[in-house]
Amino acid sequence: MKVLDQITLPVSKELEKFEEYFRSVLKTDIGLLDTVVRYLVSRKGKRIRPLLIFLSANLVGEVNERTFIGATMVELLHTATLVHDDVVDEAQERRGILSINAKWNNKIAVLLGDFLLAKGLLIAIENNEFEFLHVLSEAVKLMSEGELLQIQTSREFETDENRYFEIIYSKTASLISACCEIGCLSVTDDKEMRAKLKEFGKLIGLAFQIRDDIFDYIGKTSIIGKPVGNDIREKKITLPLIYALQKVSDKEAKAIVNIVKSNKKRKDVKEVIDFVIENDGIGSAQATAIDFINKAKRILQEFPNNSARESLLRLADYIVEREK
Amino acid sequence: MKVLDQITLPVSKELEKFEEYFRSVLKTDIGLLDTVVRYLVSRKGKRIRPLLIFLSANLVGEVNERTFIGATMVELLHTATLVHDDVVDEAQERRGILSINAKWNNKIAVLLGDFLLAKGLLIAIENNEFEFLHVLSEAVKLMSEGELLQIQTSREFETDENRYFEIIYSKTASLISACCEIGCLSVTDDKEMRAKLKEFGKLIGLAFQIRDDIFDYIGKTSIIGKPVGNDIREKKITLPLIYALQKVSDKEAKAIVNIVKSNKKRKDVKEVIDFVIENDGIGSAQATAIDFINKAKRILQEFPNNSARESLLRLADYIVEREK
Repeated sequence: MKVLDQITLPVSKELEKFEEYFRSVLKTDIGLLDTVVRYLVSRKGKRIRPLLIFLSANLVGEVNERTFIGATMVELLHTATLVHDDVVDEAQERRGILSINAKWNNKIAVLLGDFLLAKGLLIAIENNEFEFLHVLSEAVKLMSEGELLQIQTSREFETDENRYFEIIYSKTASLISACCEIGCLSVTDDKEMRAKLKEFGKLIGLAFQIRDDIFDYIGKTSIIGKPVGNDIREKKITLPLIYALQKVSDKEAKAIVNIVKSNKKRKDVKEVIDFVIENDGIGSAQATAIDFINKAKRILQEFPNNSARESLLRLADYIVEREK
Repeated sequence: MKVLDQITLPVSKELEKFEEYFRSVLKTDIGLLDTVVRYLVSRKGKRIRPLLIFLSANLVGEVNERTFIGATMVELLHTATLVHDDVVDEAQERRGILSINAKWNNKIAVLLGDFLLAKGLLIAIENNEFEFLHVLSEAVKLMSEGELLQIQTSREFETDENRYFEIIYSKTASLISACCEIGCLSVTDDKEMRAKLKEFGKLIGLAFQIRDDIFDYIGKTSIIGKPVGNDIREKKITLPLIYALQKVSDKEAKAIVNIVKSNKKRKDVKEVIDFVIENDGIGSAQATAIDFINKAKRILQEFPNNSARESLLRLADYIVEREK
């Protein structure tokens, strides 16, 4: 049995029911929209976010109708951002099939994203889930701010690690943190548990993004689904490079940053990758990710022992151990 | 004094205060985002939507803090859709200056749109304006659905007028209707007044879009800011063409639709425009717009006579009389 299957086991029925619910809310009378939506849901995502919501709910109580509403909201918002991302990155593929912008066009993709966003909001509103909405709007704002901060930082060739953590918190960890918070909120008003789960989500979210950024240096294109060295080509300075730069003289660091600045050739990307590997940028970044995961796991120890906690602990480990 | 200046007179102070408020909520610590936002607000829009909200509020009571919050939400959402529209239409200009996608790029424009959308939601949430949010999410959903329905319709070369009204209600009138509803909601819970103002907004919104679609046939490029015949080139079948097609034999209508289908040359666009003008498509469409405006004005007669009502009556007339 695969690791992820073991992790999902305690909430596998909930995840199945979720798939049905998710499809049912996306039904529409508009023929073209229905065609695009059917195509969109034909390839199921990993559903990591609903999984986190269900597990967080079961950690502190029991999944209920509100948990489903929260999971649907989050997955709608997350899907909306993926569809918009593919437009801005001019990505041709998603989940092994053509992206919406590639199969149709940019216009349809942007409109579909807006529709999914609005649907997510309406579900919250129709069900009077004001607090879910608050948590998620804050995350959506942070996500767009984080992406913009990343663009600014890569233009300035900023190599400060705190700036890096700020970016990955905004663009990735904030939504994962929101998932844990919403799962908790759906079953209890307890403020302490909510704060703890929020922090747990933040820590595993940070580790998740660090692991993703490591793949850009060591992954295989065929497994991670995008070419290795992509971040360097886009002049994104991530943790492995930041740590490697800290290990060398100012002069050498400057030379490497200059290669990233001007890089055009395949050889330039390879030179940066080799530099990072030689200076143990990968190992140091992985150590930081594991640090976050260990902190996250310690938070879980403060919750009662049950099958959801077992799965969350495994999920935390999986985040830094996964190969894609 | 220009017509629009006269119309805005009863709420000119509110509109000034609105500008300040709007800018203040958009302040951000992220340098790049701040630069883009400053550029965005450097050219003020027509602020038709805040105007409608303030006038609707004063029609049934008095503008208050809640009215400002509603106006800010709406303008944020409206601005977000404009920024996204320019991406999907690859528009190079907006309000006489370069569009965000042209001055920066698609990525920054899509992210800025998402940021503005999230900001609009957060303002509602922070101020506990649950009902504003409900009204506006419904409008945002309708707007994306309407645009998608229009794409579908133009692919099918559908020439049914009811389909046309459905599209322009979704993509344009729903938000204008929401403005009138929110203005009312900000000062009173009265359900009857709310329903009447919602209907008023719907009617002037429909007329507004019909007038816009007429410009595509008779406008001057230098005034309306986009080339005449643009809709035909994009295979959009709007009311002037629909009415002209109803006046001729099935055979002739089919021939014209075939020109729209295959049109590539400048001469094709001219032939369709001439056909519409010869068969009084413009006059008939204008008559329908005026019909909507008259119905809208009759609704206003049911409200007490005050300066806001006077302005709304003038605004209704202005919508079908304006030349750009």
